[in-house]
Amino acid sequence: MRQVSNMLDEERCRVVIESVEPEIDGGLFPIKRIPGEAVRVEADVFGDGHEAISCVLMFRHEQEKQWRQTAMELSVNDRWHGAFVVTEIGRYFYTLAAYVDRFKSWRRDLLKKVEAAQHTELDMAAGALLIEAANQRAADADAKELRAWARKLQAKNHSLADRIGYALDSELAALLEKYPDTSFATRYANELAVVVERDKARFSSWYEIFPRSCAAAPGRHGSFRDCERCLPHIAAMGFDTLYLPPIHPIGRAQRKGKNNTGAAEADDPGSPWGIGAAEGGHKAIHPELGSLDDFRRLVMKAKEYGIEIALDIAFQCSPDHPYVTQHPDWFRHRPDGSIQYAENPPKKYQDIYPLDFDTNEWRELWRELKSVVDYWIDQGVRIFRVDNPHTKPLPFWQWLIAEVKKDHAETIFLAEAFTRPKVMYRLAKLGFSQSYSYFAWRNTKQELTEYFRELTETEVHEYFRPNLWPNTPDILTEYLQFGGRPAFMTRLVLAATLGANYGIYGPAFELCDNQAREPGSEEYLNSEKYQIKHWHTDRADSLKEFIARVNRIRRENAALQNDSSLRFHNTDNDQIICYSKQSADRANVVVVVVNLDPHHVQSAWLSLDLKTLGFDVQPSYQAHDLLTGARFLWQAGKNYVELDPRSAPAHVFRLRWRVRREQDFDYFS
Amino acid sequence: MRQVSNMLDEERCRVVIESVEPEIDGGLFPIKRIPGEAVRVEADVFGDGHEAISCVLMFRHEQEKQWRQTAMELSVNDRWHGAFVVTEIGRYFYTLAAYVDRFKSWRRDLLKKVEAAQHTELDMAAGALLIEAANQRAADADAKELRAWARKLQAKNHSLADRIGYALDSELAALLEKYPDTSFATRYANELAVVVERDKARFSSWYEIFPRSCAAAPGRHGSFRDCERCLPHIAAMGFDTLYLPPIHPIGRAQRKGKNNTGAAEADDPGSPWGIGAAEGGHKAIHPELGSLDDFRRLVMKAKEYGIEIALDIAFQCSPDHPYVTQHPDWFRHRPDGSIQYAENPPKKYQDIYPLDFDTNEWRELWRELKSVVDYWIDQGVRIFRVDNPHTKPLPFWQWLIAEVKKDHAETIFLAEAFTRPKVMYRLAKLGFSQSYSYFAWRNTKQELTEYFRELTETEVHEYFRPNLWPNTPDILTEYLQFGGRPAFMTRLVLAATLGANYGIYGPAFELCDNQAREPGSEEYLNSEKYQIKHWHTDRADSLKEFIARVNRIRRENAALQNDSSLRFHNTDNDQIICYSKQSADRANVVVVVVNLDPHHVQSAWLSLDLKTLGFDVQPSYQAHDLLTGARFLWQAGKNYVELDPRSAPAHVFRLRWRVRREQDFDYFS
Repeated sequence: MRQVSNMLDEERCRVVIESVEPEIDGGLFPIKRIPGEAVRVEADVFGDGHEAISCVLMFRHEQEKQWRQTAMELSVNDRWHGAFVVTEIGRYFYTLAAYVDRFKSWRRDLLKKVEAAQHTELDMAAGALLIEAANQRAADADAKELRAWARKLQAKNHSLADRIGYALDSELAALLEKYPDTSFATRYANELAVVVERDKARFSSWYEIFPRSCAAAPGRHGSFRDCERCLPHIAAMGFDTLYLPPIHPIGRAQRKGKNNTGAAEADDPGSPWGIGAAEGGHKAIHPELGSLDDFRRLVMKAKEYGIEIALDIAFQCSPDHPYVTQHPDWFRHRPDGSIQYAENPPKKYQDIYPLDFDTNEWRELWRELKSVVDYWIDQGVRIFRVDNPHTKPLPFWQWLIAEVKKDHAETIFLAEAFTRPKVMYRLAKLGFSQSYSYFAWRNTKQELTEYFRELTETEVHEYFRPNLWPNTPDILTEYLQFGGRPAFMTRLVLAATLGANYGIYGPAFELCDNQAREPGSEEYLNSEKYQIKHWHTDRADSLKEFIARVNRIRRENAALQNDSSLRFHNTDNDQIICYSKQSADRANVVVVVVNLDPHHVQSAWLSLDLKTLGFDVQPSYQAHDLLTGARFLWQAGKNYVELDPRSAPAHVFRLRWRVRREQDFDYFS
Repeated sequence: MRQVSNMLDEERCRVVIESVEPEIDGGLFPIKRIPGEAVRVEADVFGDGHEAISCVLMFRHEQEKQWRQTAMELSVNDRWHGAFVVTEIGRYFYTLAAYVDRFKSWRRDLLKKVEAAQHTELDMAAGALLIEAANQRAADADAKELRAWARKLQAKNHSLADRIGYALDSELAALLEKYPDTSFATRYANELAVVVERDKARFSSWYEIFPRSCAAAPGRHGSFRDCERCLPHIAAMGFDTLYLPPIHPIGRAQRKGKNNTGAAEADDPGSPWGIGAAEGGHKAIHPELGSLDDFRRLVMKAKEYGIEIALDIAFQCSPDHPYVTQHPDWFRHRPDGSIQYAENPPKKYQDIYPLDFDTNEWRELWRELKSVVDYWIDQGVRIFRVDNPHTKPLPFWQWLIAEVKKDHAETIFLAEAFTRPKVMYRLAKLGFSQSYSYFAWRNTKQELTEYFRELTETEVHEYFRPNLWPNTPDILTEYLQFGGRPAFMTRLVLAATLGANYGIYGPAFELCDNQAREPGSEEYLNSEKYQIKHWHTDRADSLKEFIARVNRIRRENAALQNDSSLRFHNTDNDQIICYSKQSADRANVVVVVVNLDPHHVQSAWLSLDLKTLGFDVQPSYQAHDLLTGARFLWQAGKNYVELDPRSAPAHVFRLRWRVRREQDFDYFS
């Protein structure tokens, strides 16, 4: 199709383009995709009067100069739609153009006139003029063909009826569509962006461990070499991302003791988030973990198991961090000259000095912090879990992520911002690939339904990719504390099927550690944050096999590898939640049913909304439970489920539509 | 408050402003108000971290250079709100600014520390530093006071407890609020506009007559002088706007005959919309109506009755229009050289030549058309009803209205665009003060509720002011054709109370003319569009007194003079609709109950949602029917109504909350 040029004379453009979707904050922020995904664009497009309109969706990868074009189609009420597929990582742009289409109008009116027997020789002459005008805009071969059509329309040796036939020929229409008069085309004012990231941005399974707790025997400080030994276990469970809390030297001044008590004993290792000591800061490695070479080796070994190492980016300093003496201007000072530690009255965090982004030396500070990310990229890391990004300036992250992605578009950033919803959404808009979510605190059917509808059925799904963690070293929810082993199974299934991205905080989860520090607290008793632990991952009651099965189901079912297809279905019991996901081609449909009550058997009648899924209602179909292997023949309408939390608190069904019938036998016909 | 300056360094601005409302199409179009109305603005405002934020709403009239400011307040979930009142017609602008407020943070944290007994001398020193910094920004008198506060906070001869008291003094807080540090304030990127029009743009009562049908005796061509004689009748009914179809010379070529038949007889007067003849075009007057002086006299006389004359702007030409010969380039030509008449196949309108806005002479055409409006403004007209604006370019109207309003901001344009919803909304956005609506075809409770909720409860109410016409010379609805006199009463009450702006097509309405040209047609039999009529406005069955009563209720009740307060209430009968309106100060509350069935008595139990109206539920209150004078004592909860279409198909209640009680008697206490 002919490239739509810029408008010549704004006043002469008779078509309006408005209410474009997706468009985040007036085009300020990009939407997100992975290669192979479609971008479906909608807009209100209309003009004055009766003339027919054509509308094209224009798109290009950032490295292409020319726009590509695809025709948009009218749905209803002046709403048009079109789509393109992104194939390369990086940034795409899209916009729209629309114009009055004189030939389309003429053809439509001719049809009506023919129906009313009002057509005349004059209509043929008018059509020929339009074709000749298109001829001026056409490429050589097509120009010749267009001239031939124009002559045919006016060939007096053919009957008017014959020539009406030529005029309405669909080949002629297709040819004209290639050479529209776009002199007064309206170009949509905004060029909208799509950030295309690698597949893992949309689908990933995370596992978090403290390397120092990985020693082969209790009482020893674990190392990267010890982590290597754990890789087969983690890979067997089916995780593809191994996230390590900060691996840097830990400060000694104001170091926290066991269970986050004020004073550390001599042998207390301190919190890995108290970063920086005499041995170095954010680019150094805590000596007991090993050398830089050991770290690089771990990254390589993990890759052999299909696992990527994700590092923690926590931009804060212990009082011993080299920055404190080298760059005192990067910290805020109190009136007595001392450095301001972190506080949120009445809480004080004397072991943490926040960086002062209001410093006049902010440019140097930003550059240094980016060099930290660059340093670990040089060591082979491409995934970063960012600690508390919401306590640093939002423009800083926007800049940092954009800068890093210029050279390494494959880098993934996960925002650990447990804060107010709009701040979390803003971090996602400005560039974070994934975001921690409120999942841990959504336990009832209503809470889960409301939250995940917000995440997947509104504009939010265009830029916010939730990463669902049932636990973290900071979060041992009440539900897990009091629900026993069934609660862990339930929350695992929910996390792994509600979210294409999910993760667990390691052995503590698979071994169902549910001891809180004190009643009412969400902190673990003897938390690994403040002491070294030794986990018996071969315990018989470990959930490792259940986790492995769930992760295998995720890998084998494309339906579970996206978030936007999530839909909830009705059940008549508030303890039973039911939802579905499907692959983009609709070939793979998974329905998940979970008993949210970890203490009692619950049953319900489900009403699957097959129409919402885009399927015709069938009299019967098969529901194949991928967790147990059981197969059920389900009927249109309501179906019964019963779930015992002590054995299996959930079904993960794959639906199979085509139950074999007599017609399927070779000898039927 | 100190003026918020522009930001210095975008990266250093730590506050985000987004999702501002109202903001039409990303700020492309203004919202609408009349003097005295408030503009309530909401926005999501937040920053990183824990610092306290302040946000100001900035606004100015186009003739003011300096922004005025008012503080915004936090509602919930990072949503802030503020408001300003517009007082002058013309254009206002508004935008927002927000910044980290260090003193507010310090004060908030100090309070928390005091509660936890953690406050120290150092807090006083930090506070004093912030006060001294404000002092640098302060005006003379305030600066002195600020210095005094800073000293008091550190006065060692006062106890720390005393000085904490000073630090938390609300006078100090108010003083600091005047001099915030706005160096890194975030300014919202858009400056949004408000078009303030005179009161009549929001509240008007229209009456349409054909002047040629106003002669004192049948068989004569009425004139402007005859119209003068009709003024007392129109004024007595309570109308404030008298709209005349085109008053220009009517073309003779292709003139339409009676009942829109093809061939006109010699004495057929033709349609007033067939504009232009040897006597002149859009700036001329049809000779039989009178002279320009007669017209000016009518404008003056009408004013004496509190009535404004509204003219019709129909930018189209009869084949006899002087433009056709003077400016052939302004029309589209067919291949045979003839001028293209209007058509929408299979319909042909050979008596109308549309102007070709695609002409290369478009600038001259635009200027000439604007001069038509200017001409009638010079004759004293300030209200224009624009015929079919949706068949002319949208940018043309945007330009024309803006240009006219530069010199005459008091001009009101009503768009007569019966077309698709988005086109109608666009015309309103680009400048039309009022718009014809789909009201005529909304008859059932569900239709009315859905449509008017769209108009008043969504963003649409910020720019689209519907003008409700139960009939027009082109529209005699089925409901009116078959509902008898009750249907006219019902539709009048609905139009006059659902819409602050409404109108009727003259004597045909008040005399309940309901004869259609043929079954299935919405055209009047013997339509005034094609022939001169004589109306017996003194007929005993005229609705004139009923209309007068309804219009008086509109004038006396501010509740009925706005659209945005419209709310629907539940009734248990689909034939009974109930809705309320209230004045901005809530002093005036009107509840309307209408029987939509013109044939039968209907009754219902109403459930008034008083909470939605912002009122506490009261055990009882008075509903005073302004149509009949009857008073009802209503209870909280459900109340019964019964409406007989033959007598009164509607109640228009004014609610009176304060029923007198024993305490109200002077001698009670």
